[in-house]
Amino acid sequence: MSGERALRALVWNEGVHEANRNPPSIAEHYPDGMHGAIAAGLRRLLPGAEVSTATLADPEHGLGEQVLERTDVLLWWGHAAHDAVDDAVVERVVEHVLGGMGLLVLHSGHFSKVFRRLLGTTCSLAWRNEGERELVWTVKPSHPIAQGVPNPLVIPEQEMYGEFFDIPDPDDLVFISSFAGGEVFRSGVTFTRGRGRIFYFSPGDQDYPVYQQAEVQQVLANGVRWAAPDEPQRRMPRVSNPPREGFAQR
Amino acid sequence: MSGERALRALVWNEGVHEANRNPPSIAEHYPDGMHGAIAAGLRRLLPGAEVSTATLADPEHGLGEQVLERTDVLLWWGHAAHDAVDDAVVERVVEHVLGGMGLLVLHSGHFSKVFRRLLGTTCSLAWRNEGERELVWTVKPSHPIAQGVPNPLVIPEQEMYGEFFDIPDPDDLVFISSFAGGEVFRSGVTFTRGRGRIFYFSPGDQDYPVYQQAEVQQVLANGVRWAAPDEPQRRMPRVSNPPREGFAQR
Amino acid sequence: MSGERALRALVWNEGVHEANRNPPSIAEHYPDGMHGAIAAGLRRLLPGAEVSTATLADPEHGLGEQVLERTDVLLWWGHAAHDAVDDAVVERVVEHVLGGMGLLVLHSGHFSKVFRRLLGTTCSLAWRNEGERELVWTVKPSHPIAQGVPNPLVIPEQEMYGEFFDIPDPDDLVFISSFAGGEVFRSGVTFTRGRGRIFYFSPGDQDYPVYQQAEVQQVLANGVRWAAPDEPQRRMPRVSNPPREGFAQR
Amino acid sequence: MSGERALRALVWNEGVHEANRNPPSIAEHYPDGMHGAIAAGLRRLLPGAEVSTATLADPEHGLGEQVLERTDVLLWWGHAAHDAVDDAVVERVVEHVLGGMGLLVLHSGHFSKVFRRLLGTTCSLAWRNEGERELVWTVKPSHPIAQGVPNPLVIPEQEMYGEFFDIPDPDDLVFISSFAGGEVFRSGVTFTRGRGRIFYFSPGDQDYPVYQQAEVQQVLANGVRWAAPDEPQRRMPRVSNPPREGFAQR
Repeated sequence: MSGERALRALVWNEGVHEANRNPPSIAEHYPDGMHGAIAAGLRRLLPGAEVSTATLADPEHGLGEQVLERTDVLLWWGHAAHDAVDDAVVERVVEHVLGGMGLLVLHSGHFSKVFRRLLGTTCSLAWRNEGERELVWTVKPSHPIAQGVPNPLVIPEQEMYGEFFDIPDPDDLVFISSFAGGEVFRSGVTFTRGRGRIFYFSPGDQDYPVYQQAEVQQVLANGVRWAAPDEPQRRMPRVSNPPREGFAQR
Repeated sequence: MSGERALRALVWNEGVHEANRNPPSIAEHYPDGMHGAIAAGLRRLLPGAEVSTATLADPEHGLGEQVLERTDVLLWWGHAAHDAVDDAVVERVVEHVLGGMGLLVLHSGHFSKVFRRLLGTTCSLAWRNEGERELVWTVKPSHPIAQGVPNPLVIPEQEMYGEFFDIPDPDDLVFISSFAGGEVFRSGVTFTRGRGRIFYFSPGDQDYPVYQQAEVQQVLANGVRWAAPDEPQRRMPRVSNPPREGFAQR
Repeated sequence: MSGERALRALVWNEGVHEANRNPPSIAEHYPDGMHGAIAAGLRRLLPGAEVSTATLADPEHGLGEQVLERTDVLLWWGHAAHDAVDDAVVERVVEHVLGGMGLLVLHSGHFSKVFRRLLGTTCSLAWRNEGERELVWTVKPSHPIAQGVPNPLVIPEQEMYGEFFDIPDPDDLVFISSFAGGEVFRSGVTFTRGRGRIFYFSPGDQDYPVYQQAEVQQVLANGVRWAAPDEPQRRMPRVSNPPREGFAQR
Repeated sequence: MSGERALRALVWNEGVHEANRNPPSIAEHYPDGMHGAIAAGLRRLLPGAEVSTATLADPEHGLGEQVLERTDVLLWWGHAAHDAVDDAVVERVVEHVLGGMGLLVLHSGHFSKVFRRLLGTTCSLAWRNEGERELVWTVKPSHPIAQGVPNPLVIPEQEMYGEFFDIPDPDDLVFISSFAGGEVFRSGVTFTRGRGRIFYFSPGDQDYPVYQQAEVQQVLANGVRWAAPDEPQRRMPRVSNPPREGFAQR
């Protein structure tokens, strides 16, 4: 990202757990919703960035064409309402990612239409929600997303996500988590699809105040910076039919 | 693959160029269709294998559930009729791949629904059909698919496929091609999706007798052997919800 | 590997712990040495293979040129005497690997001269020897090395090896372990160097009877089969100075 | 890199071709040496950076401990005098890379002691010096090193470097070149070793004014920016022996 223009991040949350006050603790953990807490963390750590939020209930889920054109990095939290996301919006988000928009997929977003559509696999995993301690270990310390993150990052209570996590081999494996019960999970992984950079980070269940944790906010801020495209305009890869030696004419 | 059971390969070709005698040369180059030539090459090089063929015109495109259950590796050639492939068949093939079936995608199959669905990207590329010489260079000589393949493999006339080829980073890059006009292409790449192994190999346009070339047949036979699953039954990755220490009870 | 010729595996163990009866339990756990137990497992699971052993005390450490020429896959266990391995032998082993010989590096062999020379990094890690339970989870179930291996593989007592493990990004990440204390480790990783396939597998400390465990023996047998070269003769990559169109003359 | 501190790049060139005026054209192409041209390009494109140069003839080859401590990214050009580089200096450079220093290895530097020591392979390749046109194609357009680089980048005359290039699988494959004679080469590849980021870029023979080309300078400037460590101090990976739950005490 050029330093001249503000980085624009959009935090999308389906917002269903918040709307239904389910679990009841969510209003206490997240008075402004999970998206509010995530956005606040980004504003704290990326002071020059423009950070906004959107939810499923907004018109076009808050993901209209003009909104996406002005978005460098989209963060995605979904769980209870994956199927309620409009297929046309999914396809629009996918096209923006292929054209260069960064994407951070969070926790149960592994099962979102957007993520599964971009990865092509089932994205299935093992889970158990008993509030186990999660330890997030850094296995690629040189990666920009790992900067300033303690090793391990200790999350006192979290839902367990375990292997086998059915994703394609990632470009980079940044974090591996273990849980009190002994399971492991590739909890921080990057992908490139088209011109877009994607980061999946698994901590962050609606039952626990994970996104209020400063170290988790650091990971997300690093992720946003890393996923931001180098150029603002989208350039979806397209078929071309070049003449022989066409490149020599330029 | 256990040596006890015959490897079962199914060569699928849309068969539209052959049916339409378009280009006219196809009947001369491929009296039994491209699928016929590919199958003959596999039978020659994998004498213990059971090799069959299917085309778009067959009921369910020849890709019914019972057929796929008995298939270890599916080869896919398509070009003129990608959209005519039934979405339900596409989803069935995808599920079999995720459950372990091997898949070889050939030439213009890069734009098939199956391949794009499994990879998630546009799979777009540059192309020019002027019968240029293609040189296929081995860049991972230890890979099983490269065994017995000359370096370079010389294809006298071929359609040019050039970068940028919009695919995810492959697991292994086995071959890179150059063309007379100077373009390059990642022409032999492998992927894993779910439990399935996928090999894409780009040489093989309907205008040229590429699949009659013994070295190309060697690549395909190597690919079939490599992509064959270790166990015959499909095991699609699924969500699980294991109890704590559940693994200790076994 | 062609099915016609017997696969030849050589299990190398420095043999120092055994010679010094240190720890005292080693004679009970491994009456024939760790190499003896490993070799017995391979003979059980690869009945057609020729399996032999060698130790540091043998002339040329049992790794003379003629021995290596007749070896398809070398397994390496070392710990107390890495520095006692002759540099000329190290270089000989490295050249055979680059020329195509398979290599399995076991447990504390991460610090062997051979492994560090081939990988180029420090291969350092975190460790703690308190007999913690190790759970070995499969994260690439389609990989040949994972076939028939329970998920997780439970090792009742083992030395803890933890991240950050300073290795290059592996070709394939097959296993991730967790330990009772919460640490994680990339415990099963593959690399290609030159024409040689390398598999590192971390379980197997001299204090515990890990190599007597049938599931661990399965992993090693799978690894030997996977690492075996497709052709018996060594072909070290070399510089060439080809004339233009030299490939067309063949 | 924090924007607060100037990025410090050091361009190292053995300087032997220049000192010997061999080839005679070198004085015309590179009146200030290849290192001078490379440094000038970096100063033009990275105006805030501190760019210095060093050569083999300098005391300690200009690569003393204090110099390296103040270097964020080292660029390395060598060809005629690889063996004249002192082993202690090689080990010092390697330790700085493993501790976080960025490294760009250029053209015939593929055979430098530093590069081979870090990669572990022979780094051998095919070559032919007949002044063939090289086309450098971008195959990962989202990579920071590809920003602003034409696709293809046309180099009118260059030495041919061809596959098989005996390197480990790179982290990222950014560029693939083709040559007039038809060979291909993985000409832009990245690696991580320890905490250090490494970029190898093959164009740049002493016989041709490649480093005077603005697009080549763009690639090198991009590479320097990409390889620069996020934190200035070196942190070589080391063995640790943590107590159980030691991480909980912090």
